[in-house]
Amino acid sequence: MNILIIGATGMLGRKLTQALVSSRQIDGKEITRIKLADVVPADLPVSDSIEFDSVAVDISDPESAGQLIADRPDVIFHLAAIVSGEAELDFEKGYSINLDGTRYLLEAIRHAGQDEPYCPRLVFTSSIAVFGAPFPDKIGDEFFTTPRTSYGTQKAIGELLLSDYSRRGFVDGVGIRMPTVCIRPGKPNKAASGFFSSILREPLAGQEAVLPVDESVRHWHVSPRSAVRFLIKAAEIDTDLLGARRNLNMPGLSATVGEQIEALRRVAGEGAVKLIRREPDQMIIEMVDGWAKDFDASRALELGFAAESSFDEIIRVHVEDELGGKTGA
Amino acid sequence: MNILIIGATGMLGRKLTQALVSSRQIDGKEITRIKLADVVPADLPVSDSIEFDSVAVDISDPESAGQLIADRPDVIFHLAAIVSGEAELDFEKGYSINLDGTRYLLEAIRHAGQDEPYCPRLVFTSSIAVFGAPFPDKIGDEFFTTPRTSYGTQKAIGELLLSDYSRRGFVDGVGIRMPTVCIRPGKPNKAASGFFSSILREPLAGQEAVLPVDESVRHWHVSPRSAVRFLIKAAEIDTDLLGARRNLNMPGLSATVGEQIEALRRVAGEGAVKLIRREPDQMIIEMVDGWAKDFDASRALELGFAAESSFDEIIRVHVEDELGGKTGA
Repeated sequence: MNILIIGATGMLGRKLTQALVSSRQIDGKEITRIKLADVVPADLPVSDSIEFDSVAVDISDPESAGQLIADRPDVIFHLAAIVSGEAELDFEKGYSINLDGTRYLLEAIRHAGQDEPYCPRLVFTSSIAVFGAPFPDKIGDEFFTTPRTSYGTQKAIGELLLSDYSRRGFVDGVGIRMPTVCIRPGKPNKAASGFFSSILREPLAGQEAVLPVDESVRHWHVSPRSAVRFLIKAAEIDTDLLGARRNLNMPGLSATVGEQIEALRRVAGEGAVKLIRREPDQMIIEMVDGWAKDFDASRALELGFAAESSFDEIIRVHVEDELGGKTGA
Repeated sequence: MNILIIGATGMLGRKLTQALVSSRQIDGKEITRIKLADVVPADLPVSDSIEFDSVAVDISDPESAGQLIADRPDVIFHLAAIVSGEAELDFEKGYSINLDGTRYLLEAIRHAGQDEPYCPRLVFTSSIAVFGAPFPDKIGDEFFTTPRTSYGTQKAIGELLLSDYSRRGFVDGVGIRMPTVCIRPGKPNKAASGFFSSILREPLAGQEAVLPVDESVRHWHVSPRSAVRFLIKAAEIDTDLLGARRNLNMPGLSATVGEQIEALRRVAGEGAVKLIRREPDQMIIEMVDGWAKDFDASRALELGFAAESSFDEIIRVHVEDELGGKTGA
């Protein structure tokens, strides 16, 4: 089986690559090649059974996608995107990478299929940013997409294209709407959602963290480990079960910041909790107020997608996967 | 007030032009110029107060939109589209006119606003084709868009772009999802939905018509006269009332084919009804089965959009507007 990962150097891309190196298969079929594509070259993992290739590429160049799929990968993971904050600041760059880049990929696949039959599985990472406030308490599988960011708009358009190209038989697409990934490993970043991770990650490493919102704020989370499982599951499911509706709300955990902190207390003790400093930030408070709080992800659950059921579990995943089983608090 | 109509030679474009020539104003502001754009030149109406201009243009050419808006129209009606059947048969043409053409227009407006402030009202004709079966009995204002045609996909993408460009302050957009326009004047055409009009239009003119589906088939209708009123209303409403959600289900009349025929009997008598010949067509039966049957258009109704409340009324509008008040049956 021949795999292409676009956006391979990002956090999920690297974890997905690791997971595929470990499992050596998708849906019981042996992986023989993985091509890692991103704007910068990816490090090539060591494997005795999988042949790796790394390509530095700009997907907003109309020619790129055709080159990436020239060896006709069986499964394509499309993870590449300009993130929410940057797509809002740089309107043209966001549309060029997130909309045009996705469309060029779909068009390259369609054109490849005109020469000889070709219909790869395409896993498209969408986002809960396709939804925009006001929301019901729980967003169901049939709630409409009225994004309030350009990023969310570009993802919602990608979903529509994915569905239409799938319906026409040009590609076998599955779009998954990722919850906020928590605990994101690595350094604190400037994303407005960064505090959801940092208020756990820094204290677990014995460092101070800033909480800019009230403890009553509720949000929708998934661990990086489950997010990678979603991607692989999306490559394996029987798409006949999806019908014409190719985009799925992913399961996750709805929790308040207070519940996150209580879980931190249980897993790492009072010392860790004391490292969280309250520093309200009006801009972040207002942004977060417009974000989705809870979902009914029935369709995905029925298809076998699964996420964590407590924040204790999300924290333990982080301690196991990132901290070698030990907390520094 | 300076107006641009793109898609001016179509049925709605011509009726909209006539209506504006009669009213001479939009929202109380005098119309001084109307530019009529389409792939073929439009006939110039006679008016002593409005200056007319006709432009033949291909909106899939990236340069066209900039030329169309060079004189900075205050209101733009974007009615141009490759229709459903053709967009399904010619994939590339549909995307090129319906998606790229709309995006070029939005981009031209955004670029014009970079030179000096410019934020015109843009009325975008969307369609109930943005929805795809299975449906609830009544489709509400928050039901999701999962189109089952490329045309519906292109319209749903146009809606998302319109909302994002409006949110960013580049344009002041209103998207209206038109019901099936009935009774369409003119000759029978090959559209699968054509029979909804022809089973009334032909008998009213004393001619035979073919009914390819069962009388129990239910669908969502509006007269051409109300459709034109929707367009003008969309140019006049206070868009602050829309918030970030710029696309509206339009009101209409949900009726079965049987109810259409009963109305024909009441308005034009048994002789007219006898001109309808049953000739079931399996392909049309299956297509129509996937179409929306009824809507709850609360948002639009609250904003003052209004449609017919009986098929008798829809038939009378046709008799008045197209047949000079007389039926030939």
